[in-house]
Amino acid sequence: MQFKLTPEYLDSLKKAVSVRNDAYIVDLLKELHPSDIAEIFNELDSEEAKFVYVHLEEEEAGKVLVEMDEDVRERFLASLTSKEIAEQFIDNMESDDAADVIAELPHDVQGEVLSHIEDADQASDIVDLMKYDENTAGSLMAKELVKVNVNKNMLECVRQLRNHADHIQDIFAIYVVDDNDKLVGLVTLKKVLTRPLRTPIRDIFTQEIISVRTGTDVEEAARVMEKYDLVVLPVVDVTGKLVGRITIDDVVDVIRKEETEDLQKMAGMEVLEEPYMSIPFWQLIKKRSGWLIILFIGESFTATAMGFFQDQIAKAVVLALFVPLIISSGGNTGSQASTLIIRALALGEVTIKEWWKIVKKEMLVGLMLGIILGSIGFLRVALWSAFVDIYGQHWIMVGATVGISLIGVVLWGNLSGSILPIILKRAGLDPAVSSAPFVATLVDVTGLVIYFTVATLMLRGILL
Amino acid sequence: MQFKLTPEYLDSLKKAVSVRNDAYIVDLLKELHPSDIAEIFNELDSEEAKFVYVHLEEEEAGKVLVEMDEDVRERFLASLTSKEIAEQFIDNMESDDAADVIAELPHDVQGEVLSHIEDADQASDIVDLMKYDENTAGSLMAKELVKVNVNKNMLECVRQLRNHADHIQDIFAIYVVDDNDKLVGLVTLKKVLTRPLRTPIRDIFTQEIISVRTGTDVEEAARVMEKYDLVVLPVVDVTGKLVGRITIDDVVDVIRKEETEDLQKMAGMEVLEEPYMSIPFWQLIKKRSGWLIILFIGESFTATAMGFFQDQIAKAVVLALFVPLIISSGGNTGSQASTLIIRALALGEVTIKEWWKIVKKEMLVGLMLGIILGSIGFLRVALWSAFVDIYGQHWIMVGATVGISLIGVVLWGNLSGSILPIILKRAGLDPAVSSAPFVATLVDVTGLVIYFTVATLMLRGILL
Repeated sequence: MQFKLTPEYLDSLKKAVSVRNDAYIVDLLKELHPSDIAEIFNELDSEEAKFVYVHLEEEEAGKVLVEMDEDVRERFLASLTSKEIAEQFIDNMESDDAADVIAELPHDVQGEVLSHIEDADQASDIVDLMKYDENTAGSLMAKELVKVNVNKNMLECVRQLRNHADHIQDIFAIYVVDDNDKLVGLVTLKKVLTRPLRTPIRDIFTQEIISVRTGTDVEEAARVMEKYDLVVLPVVDVTGKLVGRITIDDVVDVIRKEETEDLQKMAGMEVLEEPYMSIPFWQLIKKRSGWLIILFIGESFTATAMGFFQDQIAKAVVLALFVPLIISSGGNTGSQASTLIIRALALGEVTIKEWWKIVKKEMLVGLMLGIILGSIGFLRVALWSAFVDIYGQHWIMVGATVGISLIGVVLWGNLSGSILPIILKRAGLDPAVSSAPFVATLVDVTGLVIYFTVATLMLRGILL
Repeated sequence: MQFKLTPEYLDSLKKAVSVRNDAYIVDLLKELHPSDIAEIFNELDSEEAKFVYVHLEEEEAGKVLVEMDEDVRERFLASLTSKEIAEQFIDNMESDDAADVIAELPHDVQGEVLSHIEDADQASDIVDLMKYDENTAGSLMAKELVKVNVNKNMLECVRQLRNHADHIQDIFAIYVVDDNDKLVGLVTLKKVLTRPLRTPIRDIFTQEIISVRTGTDVEEAARVMEKYDLVVLPVVDVTGKLVGRITIDDVVDVIRKEETEDLQKMAGMEVLEEPYMSIPFWQLIKKRSGWLIILFIGESFTATAMGFFQDQIAKAVVLALFVPLIISSGGNTGSQASTLIIRALALGEVTIKEWWKIVKKEMLVGLMLGIILGSIGFLRVALWSAFVDIYGQHWIMVGATVGISLIGVVLWGNLSGSILPIILKRAGLDPAVSSAPFVATLVDVTGLVIYFTVATLMLRGILL
């Protein structure tokens, strides 16, 4: 029932292509969903792909193209003429997909392809869509929609539906507009099916309608669709005129992309534009090394900080042994806190106005976690000292120093981790940048200072 | 156009409730979407909520209930009788939502509510849905759907649509079944609108139909809907019989939940079941401290590892200064690698079969990143030595030790970070557990051994 691309399957397909077995290919394609065909295309070279695509049905070719991996599509389209691209793919695509595909083409090819599109309206729709900024609702919307004037009746509604049925993949609603094309409501398909044809639209249309502006951020549009459980969302211009609609499948892609970007930022790297396997070596190095270098420079202040306490370390080498344990505990707690707050901010569970509530909560949580880890730290020193004489006669004071430092470092790490995303968001930056590695670096440097200060105070006259 | 819950708005509403201003409440509710009303309910106490809900239209009450926060809903329902819950909410809800709400109730209340449901079919649907395991497609589906026998014609199709129009929020497709109720295809609404009523279903229905089994994992169902850009997905039982359908809004929730869980696991904590603000203090401590303690115990091996090199540290205190810098570089690189691989595995960009390709790639990437950070590390030592005599006369050898150790530690960190998710996935565990903190802890301990071994080899006879 569901398609699975196995190596054996791909082998037999490639063989059929190499011997030019048309009948086999046609049979095969007939059974498959465009998404599955796209999966196959991802594994073919441009020559093979060219042989397969001519056997696709016109309506399917565009859908397959949209579902292909970006780099595969790029290579494939480079092997076709502008005329072929326009007539065999773009002509049968919805305007939003068409605009996306054309935007990926080299600049000089874009104009050529547009000039070969048969339907002048579609061409101008595409040109219009390409104007919108990449991160706005305008760039995500399709122009194809069914609308009806509020002064007409249901018969007109059905007429409009029939007129557009060929151009629109899925019709979920009929929008109602006034004489100025301003969006005023919608008619559900359910009503079209159940009400008499002479019913005036005015009497039965739903006036409460959720819409976004062309300039609305795509992530905001995604949140609106999620909140109101919408499958399709109308888009209006600044004057309220209906200009397009966004469908849920595009929004799901936005959500996935957004989550991946957040994850990558939170792991301390730049956002990768391509899937892991297809990203070139040097680009991967570039995306990863930038933040690594910044973190390295930040972290190198630990060497400076420890430099100030060289004498103490020389006198009590035992202090050095606990450095990684203490600073990493602060870092781990800070990572947890920053992840929690970044996510809560992203999902709208908290707002930056509630910063004081968050700080209060996280101070208590940090203190408690510090006490837990501090106690374990003290026990660790005590336990070892019972068996080996590694921490000397003053093991109780060493253990207490470790324990108290842990409380301070964990509390501080937790506080930094929770407050940093809020500060970044307040400053208009992306909170996800206050990643775990970033917080850890900050806490490492300050944690060392806390640790050695506690040690200096507690061990003076004993070990120091 | 879009609703925004301001403190002022909430104040005036609460005031209207306290003076029992019915007219105000009715006016207010008429204008709002159920999702917005739910947002208001989240801010009311049970007494206030009770006063507001009686003014809701019957059809809306159920929708509002579903959109409320889980803990608010729990408290609110606890203030109602079983009869009120059944008649005023459940009776107007779709079966999947109804089953979810009832499943949250205390066990003894569940039976009572079910016995008060008027429609016996709905009650048995709900009981049936409650049987499915929480993470399966069965638990996510609704029973309400429109189906038509393959031997009928379009007139029957329209008749079925009209019959069900009242019970189903949105109708996206009409499913076609054979005489045994087995799913064999679908008829799009577009066809219903554009084809003559006497057309036999058999002649025009779409036979290629994607479906999942009741036992399919919800995340797998989500992936299927994403891949095929579906708005609704039919669910069949083991015999292929059509039993329900999943809608995209439920799947979007699954995706969000899944991403949040992954993020929390990757930050080294247990998955929180509730939003950040509503999770109780001790539960938060419990969820966070578990992994922190495990990481702490793992990290405490750094103290053991450094214990072995106490003599070297005593002789050359300068070695201790670079410990945090070197181990954190390994940890940061490892975090990046594990995040990349965990995400690529989750999105299906790579499979564990490709482990050797990943290892080869990450060895080269790790080596390159190591060379970059190692060079900066050497330069750091050289630069400081030009101004202050902190690293002594042998600063070149100290710098070389730091540089070479960095190459080793970064390479090793990168390799651990990329291979650990693969090993976990191979063992049937969730790769997200190989979180950044987990990788960092592993790399900290081993990184110390690499560093001090390099130092012992390079500085013997010079500083050691």
